[in-house]
Amino acid sequence: MSKYWSPFVKTLVPYVPGEQPKLNKLVKLNTNENPYGPSPKALAAMQVEIGDTLRLYPDPNGERLKRAVADYYSVQRAVADYYSVQPAQVFVGNGSDEVLAHAFHGLFQHGKPLLFPDVTYSFYPVYCGLYGIEYETIALDDEFQIEVADYNRPNGGIIFPNPNAPTGRVLTLQAIERLLQANTESVVLVDEAYIDFGGESAIALVDRYPNLLVTQTLSKSRSLAGLRVGLAVGHPDLIEALERAVGHPDLIEALERIKNSFNSYPLDRIAIAGAAAAFEDRLYFQQTCQQVIASREDVVAAMTAQGFEVLPSAANFIFARHPGHDAAALAAALREAGVIVRHFKLPRIDQYLRITIGTPEQNQALLDAIAQATQK
Amino acid sequence: MSKYWSPFVKTLVPYVPGEQPKLNKLVKLNTNENPYGPSPKALAAMQVEIGDTLRLYPDPNGERLKRAVADYYSVQRAVADYYSVQPAQVFVGNGSDEVLAHAFHGLFQHGKPLLFPDVTYSFYPVYCGLYGIEYETIALDDEFQIEVADYNRPNGGIIFPNPNAPTGRVLTLQAIERLLQANTESVVLVDEAYIDFGGESAIALVDRYPNLLVTQTLSKSRSLAGLRVGLAVGHPDLIEALERAVGHPDLIEALERIKNSFNSYPLDRIAIAGAAAAFEDRLYFQQTCQQVIASREDVVAAMTAQGFEVLPSAANFIFARHPGHDAAALAAALREAGVIVRHFKLPRIDQYLRITIGTPEQNQALLDAIAQATQK
Repeated sequence: MSKYWSPFVKTLVPYVPGEQPKLNKLVKLNTNENPYGPSPKALAAMQVEIGDTLRLYPDPNGERLKRAVADYYSVQRAVADYYSVQPAQVFVGNGSDEVLAHAFHGLFQHGKPLLFPDVTYSFYPVYCGLYGIEYETIALDDEFQIEVADYNRPNGGIIFPNPNAPTGRVLTLQAIERLLQANTESVVLVDEAYIDFGGESAIALVDRYPNLLVTQTLSKSRSLAGLRVGLAVGHPDLIEALERAVGHPDLIEALERIKNSFNSYPLDRIAIAGAAAAFEDRLYFQQTCQQVIASREDVVAAMTAQGFEVLPSAANFIFARHPGHDAAALAAALREAGVIVRHFKLPRIDQYLRITIGTPEQNQALLDAIAQATQK
Repeated sequence: MSKYWSPFVKTLVPYVPGEQPKLNKLVKLNTNENPYGPSPKALAAMQVEIGDTLRLYPDPNGERLKRAVADYYSVQRAVADYYSVQPAQVFVGNGSDEVLAHAFHGLFQHGKPLLFPDVTYSFYPVYCGLYGIEYETIALDDEFQIEVADYNRPNGGIIFPNPNAPTGRVLTLQAIERLLQANTESVVLVDEAYIDFGGESAIALVDRYPNLLVTQTLSKSRSLAGLRVGLAVGHPDLIEALERAVGHPDLIEALERIKNSFNSYPLDRIAIAGAAAAFEDRLYFQQTCQQVIASREDVVAAMTAQGFEVLPSAANFIFARHPGHDAAALAAALREAGVIVRHFKLPRIDQYLRITIGTPEQNQALLDAIAQATQK
């Protein structure tokens, strides 16, 4: 029936998300979800929304969530140095995947190649296919690190996750600043899906670099993958580029224009309330992130003792290989033992497994299954 | 900062949704929300989702909702005539606006103009701007009706709401069949946002017309504007065009390819559960639709008695003008009296008001405010 399709659809290769198994008994360490549930305060805020007012449209602008995010990132850094993020610098959407899609559409179509690492989030080339964006991949170094000097070439934009996925390796803000200083003519998008597990957010730089856009998700550190909320923070001029902001006629610009030409209400009432409360509950957030980080170090130590090479991780997952065992075979053996991890059949990384950090009990199940599989 | 924008963003004109006032005291009859709350069963189903499992991604395919929609539209029409809709014929998304966006992107880019009425949903030209689609508007007749014969001209697709918005006028399935028979080479999209208030759904035709796509929303008749859920139903071949359906390699096609290249999880866990339960609760749905329809007839009678010309409506709103009063002035006077209605400053309809049907109490407040305003 393809005569009815827009021609580009014929060659579109969609993203394939990690498996969502229907068996509850499996230890699910394949899609980097948080092993701890959402903040009780977030759940309570969502409860309030379950009622008659669901008949009404939500706030198309998600103001309550934008305020919560802005407050979270507005901090006293030193005496006489208060770093302020305004709600107008925050853009929110239906998961960071939607926010990224709008950013690709609105900021990366320049007839010059978008640059991203050869080993990275596999949705990036999919967006390029969706919006007809040319791209070039830049090889990670032999330690699977991003070398920012390699990005000094003509480009229509640069994007990378920090920490990178699926490697878990993190860049310092100093390295990101070098990249920004060498690349002032196009947008640098830092995708911080995993930043809260060990990196420093580049949101601290948005006031000084008008071409910096930082995206985050509530699916990982905020334990709300099931709610679908993501966000972007940028320079006031860049974000107001994303906002159809009445009262800022000079600055009515890119991402929000796209959003308001696509779907006026990407976030429902429950999502706005729950996401805002998740940002407000700092204590729960810090505690659960710390638990994940501590578990990660335990898992790294145990797997290293079992003969694995584990890349240094600043994320809620690790990327590891065993010199004596084929990764695909190992993933299959773990699955048979009831533990699902992710294996990518891709160049350079086909001997690695990406393993989400779970609860201590889940991690022990993983280590037991690994011990069994590697003894075969 | 526009050097960072993709060039097309510079000329993009976003959609402007109806006002969401922050004052609760206003009688809000401007965005066609349902005056009755969602089904208690839908609320209960959402409650169940507010908990620990929100840490996990939702089903990217929204299978539970697709099943509920398919069941709802699978009916015994006569002895030996069971009309079956399969879940694979259903596509779901974050409001029908998102579903429409994907349809414009995936099905209407053919280098020939998309056709739609001159007076219709004002988001259609916005999508054309977003995806670079050429369009031609076809004038409604003098009674503000769609004349299907006028669409017999070269096109890259046809779209219209049925009932049309903001007029409320409905087409019969016979008229829609004439249009489909005269237009087999491109997609006909029937946007049924308001169908449950007095029209007959074209979903009854999807098995016979491979180029028919029908979209619906849960924001109106299902009272879930605050939850953001929409859907499309089509011929198995057309919908599987929309599905990245593993196991249907020949039919992996348009809308679902787009969706899976844009955002794998457009519906959150709460939305899937609530929307499915809303479709399952037929009794509540029928009762509330009947109440709205009965109220509409009361309002039409009362406004006609007050000197208004009211177009015949099959929707949950009416489109009316008063020969003796300017519509913009009337809208302003109603607002001052605490009643918000929608006025479009657009050719042909700038003397009309679009008024959502509310509860009997809200409708009385409207009629009182009108009486006061027209006596001035």
